[in-house]
Amino acid sequence: MTADTNPSMYAVILAGGGGTRLWPLSRRARPKPFLPLLGNESLFQMTLTRIGPLIKPEDTYVIADQRHLEDVTQQAPQLLGRRLIGEPFGRNTAAAVALAALTIERPGEDVMVVLPADHWISDETGFRHSLAAAARAADDGSLVTLGIAPGGPETGYGYIVGTSDGAAAGEAHKVERFVEKPDREKATELLGAANGAWWNAGIFVWRRDALIAALEKHAPGLVTAIRRGLEQGQSLGTTYESLPDVSIDRALMEPASLEGAVKVVPADVGWSDLGSWNALYAELSRRMPSESGVVAIGNVQDHESEDVLVHSSGGRLVVTVGLADTIVVDTPDVVLVCAADRAQEVRAIVDRLAQAKENEYL
Amino acid sequence: MTADTNPSMYAVILAGGGGTRLWPLSRRARPKPFLPLLGNESLFQMTLTRIGPLIKPEDTYVIADQRHLEDVTQQAPQLLGRRLIGEPFGRNTAAAVALAALTIERPGEDVMVVLPADHWISDETGFRHSLAAAARAADDGSLVTLGIAPGGPETGYGYIVGTSDGAAAGEAHKVERFVEKPDREKATELLGAANGAWWNAGIFVWRRDALIAALEKHAPGLVTAIRRGLEQGQSLGTTYESLPDVSIDRALMEPASLEGAVKVVPADVGWSDLGSWNALYAELSRRMPSESGVVAIGNVQDHESEDVLVHSSGGRLVVTVGLADTIVVDTPDVVLVCAADRAQEVRAIVDRLAQAKENEYL
Repeated sequence: MTADTNPSMYAVILAGGGGTRLWPLSRRARPKPFLPLLGNESLFQMTLTRIGPLIKPEDTYVIADQRHLEDVTQQAPQLLGRRLIGEPFGRNTAAAVALAALTIERPGEDVMVVLPADHWISDETGFRHSLAAAARAADDGSLVTLGIAPGGPETGYGYIVGTSDGAAAGEAHKVERFVEKPDREKATELLGAANGAWWNAGIFVWRRDALIAALEKHAPGLVTAIRRGLEQGQSLGTTYESLPDVSIDRALMEPASLEGAVKVVPADVGWSDLGSWNALYAELSRRMPSESGVVAIGNVQDHESEDVLVHSSGGRLVVTVGLADTIVVDTPDVVLVCAADRAQEVRAIVDRLAQAKENEYL
Repeated sequence: MTADTNPSMYAVILAGGGGTRLWPLSRRARPKPFLPLLGNESLFQMTLTRIGPLIKPEDTYVIADQRHLEDVTQQAPQLLGRRLIGEPFGRNTAAAVALAALTIERPGEDVMVVLPADHWISDETGFRHSLAAAARAADDGSLVTLGIAPGGPETGYGYIVGTSDGAAAGEAHKVERFVEKPDREKATELLGAANGAWWNAGIFVWRRDALIAALEKHAPGLVTAIRRGLEQGQSLGTTYESLPDVSIDRALMEPASLEGAVKVVPADVGWSDLGSWNALYAELSRRMPSESGVVAIGNVQDHESEDVLVHSSGGRLVVTVGLADTIVVDTPDVVLVCAADRAQEVRAIVDRLAQAKENEYL
């Protein structure tokens, strides 16, 4: 089956989300999707490039915080004049998906592909094959998600557990349930599940009519609030204030999976959410391998360090001497030096700065 | 004996010397003596404060690279209009001492105290007592040096070895010989010397006439070249070009000690040359003790590091997370992150930058 025979597809790219785990490079004013973390293109731009052969720019929509729409059009001028949805503020993914479903006017049988804008995927061809397979699986009205082949018992992701419906390899399995971020023991148990378990990457594929029907069933308050707001010409800010702050996984996929309405297409496509300095370091190490394990971006001089990421974008010279397992990030106003195995604790500092109202650094 | 009954003393402060071991804070344009390493005052200012009760400003002279005379007068306005000697370039300590001896006109019996401007001494009263004792010991024409109570078998200092002349504690011993920077084995052997061994801190006390006579004997070429330059109205640059690049220890103290003309006054006064980031960290730890061993100067936020020095003077926020035994130095144009036990290797980076002609960072 080639792209030509796929159902008519359109993409909704979710480019919201603050996230503090790549602080101080990612900031409120310039969040992760718009940073050129892995080269010249931002993750948002890479997301567009990746789906390009499958979904044309005129079928590509972006939903982002309204403060970041300028980043969107600067980084993707081909989207100028197309449908860009500016959120008044972030209200989690259920609100964003429902808003896109109800306001982007497409035939009901068109297949919507929901994509986060801040992930990295190394096997782009494989990824497009998975999306196409998911689109076919969605044709019967199923809600389809990509399942990422787990790299280990990670506790930072939600899991998708399959049923014993015996689908062919690479095609869709019926989903038994979604599991929210588990502890280490539970994650290890999940990896051994008889019918397969995958990481939930927040990539969804569904017919527009099936999505709206499922939302009406499982999240009726959300649908009603958005529809009423639209009918009454209410500002989106007022509407958003009334919406629940809940993920699409929880609002829709979890209850729908219990009714047998969800499928998963396994995707072993070199996915990473680059969700921490460690994850970014791992990906950069693969792309820029060196004997010492030192990855240096920007104006850096190293003397005999090992397994170190040095990311300099502050315009200064960064010098490292004899370090091991350390992450150094230089930005114009903040320098971070962090033990690699404690990269997730950067959040503690950001929380402390927020409490102290040091907003200039957030 | 009180200060009033001491011989007439004057101080010559040697404020030259580049030194790369505190790079990137110390630079060619702003070397170590003029940096506020331990607080609000620079080491040069602390040197003046330390001798203040013993030697008045009008008896205090400074010799420094001419490019740094502005730093001298900015940091010590009380010396404006006094004798400040600007060297055209650094030519080691023998040249500086001989130039001071021959050009600062004082009676021959006045006692000259030579002090480096980049050391730290915690026991200021004890230090002044030692200087006064040295001045008395110099009255017979001896060349006197302070001997620092050794903190261990350090290989970075020269050593002074005493004879068995049985001086009273705290008073002057006759010196048997000077030992240049030894290896670890030799240093350990020296610490066990029967008649005492001390670190050579480059602090000298002598009558002006005795110094000039000793220089005429042991370094006649040096004296002749300076005198001829002065008589012929030659520029100091031309004179300096012709002078040997040699330390006063080697040119004068070593040969004079072999003739029995040198004495040492032991001084257990909390001395440090702050000669590396490690040494600075040790001194700051004593002044700012904390359970974690984290010493933070400037705008710093730490999360659970141990035994870390963070020195921020670059105007940025420096954030450290989970580090151990690390030194972080932020300046306006360079950030250094260094394993504490490899602080001396900062020099390798400076050499590399010099070879690459990256002069802006030197």
